[in-house]
Amino acid sequence: MEPFSHLDDLGHPRMVDVGGKERTAREALAEGVVLLPQTIRDALFSGTTDKGDVMKVAEVAGIMAAKKASELIPLCHNISLDKVEIHCELLPKENRIKITCNAASKGVTGVEMEALTGVMAAALTVYDMCKGIDKGMVIQNVRLLHKIGGKSGDYRVSEEEHE
Amino acid sequence: MEPFSHLDDLGHPRMVDVGGKERTAREALAEGVVLLPQTIRDALFSGTTDKGDVMKVAEVAGIMAAKKASELIPLCHNISLDKVEIHCELLPKENRIKITCNAASKGVTGVEMEALTGVMAAALTVYDMCKGIDKGMVIQNVRLLHKIGGKSGDYRVSEEEHE
Amino acid sequence: MEPFSHLDDLGHPRMVDVGGKERTAREALAEGVVLLPQTIRDALFSGTTDKGDVMKVAEVAGIMAAKKASELIPLCHNISLDKVEIHCELLPKENRIKITCNAASKGVTGVEMEALTGVMAAALTVYDMCKGIDKGMVIQNVRLLHKIGGKSGDYRVSEEEHE
Amino acid sequence: MEPFSHLDDLGHPRMVDVGGKERTAREALAEGVVLLPQTIRDALFSGTTDKGDVMKVAEVAGIMAAKKASELIPLCHNISLDKVEIHCELLPKENRIKITCNAASKGVTGVEMEALTGVMAAALTVYDMCKGIDKGMVIQNVRLLHKIGGKSGDYRVSEEEHE
Amino acid sequence: MEPFSHLDDLGHPRMVDVGGKERTAREALAEGVVLLPQTIRDALFSGTTDKGDVMKVAEVAGIMAAKKASELIPLCHNISLDKVEIHCELLPKENRIKITCNAASKGVTGVEMEALTGVMAAALTVYDMCKGIDKGMVIQNVRLLHKIGGKSGDYRVSEEEHE
Amino acid sequence: MEPFSHLDDLGHPRMVDVGGKERTAREALAEGVVLLPQTIRDALFSGTTDKGDVMKVAEVAGIMAAKKASELIPLCHNISLDKVEIHCELLPKENRIKITCNAASKGVTGVEMEALTGVMAAALTVYDMCKGIDKGMVIQNVRLLHKIGGKSGDYRVSEEEHE
Repeated sequence: MEPFSHLDDLGHPRMVDVGGKERTAREALAEGVVLLPQTIRDALFSGTTDKGDVMKVAEVAGIMAAKKASELIPLCHNISLDKVEIHCELLPKENRIKITCNAASKGVTGVEMEALTGVMAAALTVYDMCKGIDKGMVIQNVRLLHKIGGKSGDYRVSEEEHE
Repeated sequence: MEPFSHLDDLGHPRMVDVGGKERTAREALAEGVVLLPQTIRDALFSGTTDKGDVMKVAEVAGIMAAKKASELIPLCHNISLDKVEIHCELLPKENRIKITCNAASKGVTGVEMEALTGVMAAALTVYDMCKGIDKGMVIQNVRLLHKIGGKSGDYRVSEEEHE
Repeated sequence: MEPFSHLDDLGHPRMVDVGGKERTAREALAEGVVLLPQTIRDALFSGTTDKGDVMKVAEVAGIMAAKKASELIPLCHNISLDKVEIHCELLPKENRIKITCNAASKGVTGVEMEALTGVMAAALTVYDMCKGIDKGMVIQNVRLLHKIGGKSGDYRVSEEEHE
Repeated sequence: MEPFSHLDDLGHPRMVDVGGKERTAREALAEGVVLLPQTIRDALFSGTTDKGDVMKVAEVAGIMAAKKASELIPLCHNISLDKVEIHCELLPKENRIKITCNAASKGVTGVEMEALTGVMAAALTVYDMCKGIDKGMVIQNVRLLHKIGGKSGDYRVSEEEHE
Repeated sequence: MEPFSHLDDLGHPRMVDVGGKERTAREALAEGVVLLPQTIRDALFSGTTDKGDVMKVAEVAGIMAAKKASELIPLCHNISLDKVEIHCELLPKENRIKITCNAASKGVTGVEMEALTGVMAAALTVYDMCKGIDKGMVIQNVRLLHKIGGKSGDYRVSEEEHE
Repeated sequence: MEPFSHLDDLGHPRMVDVGGKERTAREALAEGVVLLPQTIRDALFSGTTDKGDVMKVAEVAGIMAAKKASELIPLCHNISLDKVEIHCELLPKENRIKITCNAASKGVTGVEMEALTGVMAAALTVYDMCKGIDKGMVIQNVRLLHKIGGKSGDYRVSEEEHE
């Protein structure tokens, strides 16, 4: 049996048939971080501007991108999302911005890709807004923390992975 | 002076004026990796399918996403790209797929965001195509390696960062 | 209690959770007008071209934009529309084009934004097609006239507002 | 001569040929207002949330939509924008939010439609975020205030129109 | 009675109301061919590159375009697809690439346009990737082969048409 | 030497580097036809609706799609178009609609794909608007007729091909 459901027996890519799957409540929580050089970290605290403004633009970007996951990821189903919540949190001691994105939908496919896409777009937006100061940011640890619903059941990242 | 050019003095987000900047040849190289659980690594080698097929779909996704960077990143300028090259390479000993994306344009803004967006979308596509086997993948180390052109000049990631 | 459901307690924007809402038949009717300088009004009647052609391009634009409402409005849910009808009507005595857009969907969120977006895009298209003659057009009175369905029930603009 | 350049002699819509036009610096300033019912006006001042948050989401939406003008308006040229600035300002005494959008580009077509589209999307976003409180908002007076560059020269709305 | 449901009695285009239609399983199969000049046919067999690579990029393009059918076709409903499968097959004796696209959805509208759009985008992608060798390709015979579901029932192209 | 410039030596897809190419005036003319079953041909002449309305919606769709060619075709450069003209002409004796699309741009890449995409989207739109009457339409003969500009010089379809 071919383990990659997105490829048929001859290797042709396909959007797999979910027509026979049951509609259930689906939810996914993804996260990622943007590591900040000291220069950016300092700028976020020295500006006259509310540092939250960078985070808010990134949050809006993440929500909008979550709705576009199926436009970016070729074999991802296009679905209607019931919810997207995203938080960009500046952790000043750790010189990083932590991003979490939570998506939900009642349907026949999971929403992991939507949550991950939300994190990615928010991280890229942080990068874009801070790159004039320093280009040495690194986006790290983008992954799925938790998912609920669907045939494969619930998933939670194992503790040892989740430092 | 406000260090974040994407915010004006009152904190309003803006797409900064590049009208006065000079047209120069711009290039950017970004990279990232997808860490693979052993299950996926094995599946990529055990399938009847050419394992390159996963990589190729991801590469196409990355190129298409690079062209859409300005749709995803709110304050990023929409530009015409002259080139996008992307490589997804399976490093079997290290249980990872390494992605590099190289973008170029002759214009008044850099192409860092386009290169980074290409990496991101390719990484997400790998995740999507392999998540049926295992959801424990992690996208790591997405960053800019190198850029050429523009007023801020060339940039190259420092050696100690570039393990 | 926070009155803006699109912001959480800390002010983070979010796409609100509609997962628990009931699927009902939703409908919304929006309108707007484009005020025409005399020059444009005359041109619409003096041309050899059927003046309906401007209106028809605007109607097509409005329908297509209604389907894109969730791409333009950050916290708007992406949904499948069951119907979009739009009319651009030249009112020659009043030197204006009146636009109405009617959208419908069976789902968990209203379709007000889709109807309003349809009106807006049609109005902008009229502006675009006539601006070569005179740039003094004004888009006025874009609003919701009527909506049906959903927990908040029916809505109808009050008479005194609806001159 | 046919006064509508977007229609050929037989009434076929077309994107007019700008290949022979000169590249000049173009700029456009558009505005519009959202009239707020008292309920919304009060909510903006009574919430625990910073009322600026509604405005900021709208500003991000406006900037992103300005980049998409040519996707919404059928005969509008797709161009690279050099700048987009947008301000949503709450005028509490007048129960309204005033939106201005300023776009610029060096090119062969004007940027009026981009500026107007930015105003429209910001206005729709305000509507979307406040409609849970009251649906009686009205978007008014969306128009071009000023434009610079191009063969038709500068344009400024006349004083009597600009109350 | 007006035979074109996409136009109302006055000729206004509309997205027809499918709100009253029943949700059924829908499926559509479309096909098309790209006729190849001998130069391209030979190049596909002489290159050091796997000739399947052209086909695979085209297949990815077709799947992504099927999801975008409603963005391209003004009066086409935007729906969630359950499945998209596409095959690009090089028929070397006949100097042609044959493309088939199969789409499915459970819903109130058919998926013919999605399947046809998938074929079209794959054909255009083949054209794009081979046009550097010879521009004399022709896209032929794009049509619906088969559809299942919906009020109008099943459809199968008649034998005499299907050489 | 690898004949397919869109694939590198290892078969990775790429958007080829056009940074070193000269900006020249580019133009392309593409065509295609939709063969109409008698039922549709008759309906176009029997309706109370102006038969031109079907054609006009298709023309608008074609123009909008030409601007989106690079979103549909993975390795196609995203460019600013200077002109798009499209004509859908009903040829009643031949039971067909003939579509031609003419695109132009001053730049470093050709506009063949934009012209072909315009034809394709117009043809699909005709199909969509008439499929309620009969699904037996066939899109035929989509090809490039003529192109001007660029290093490869002018191209004109040979007479024997152009029946």
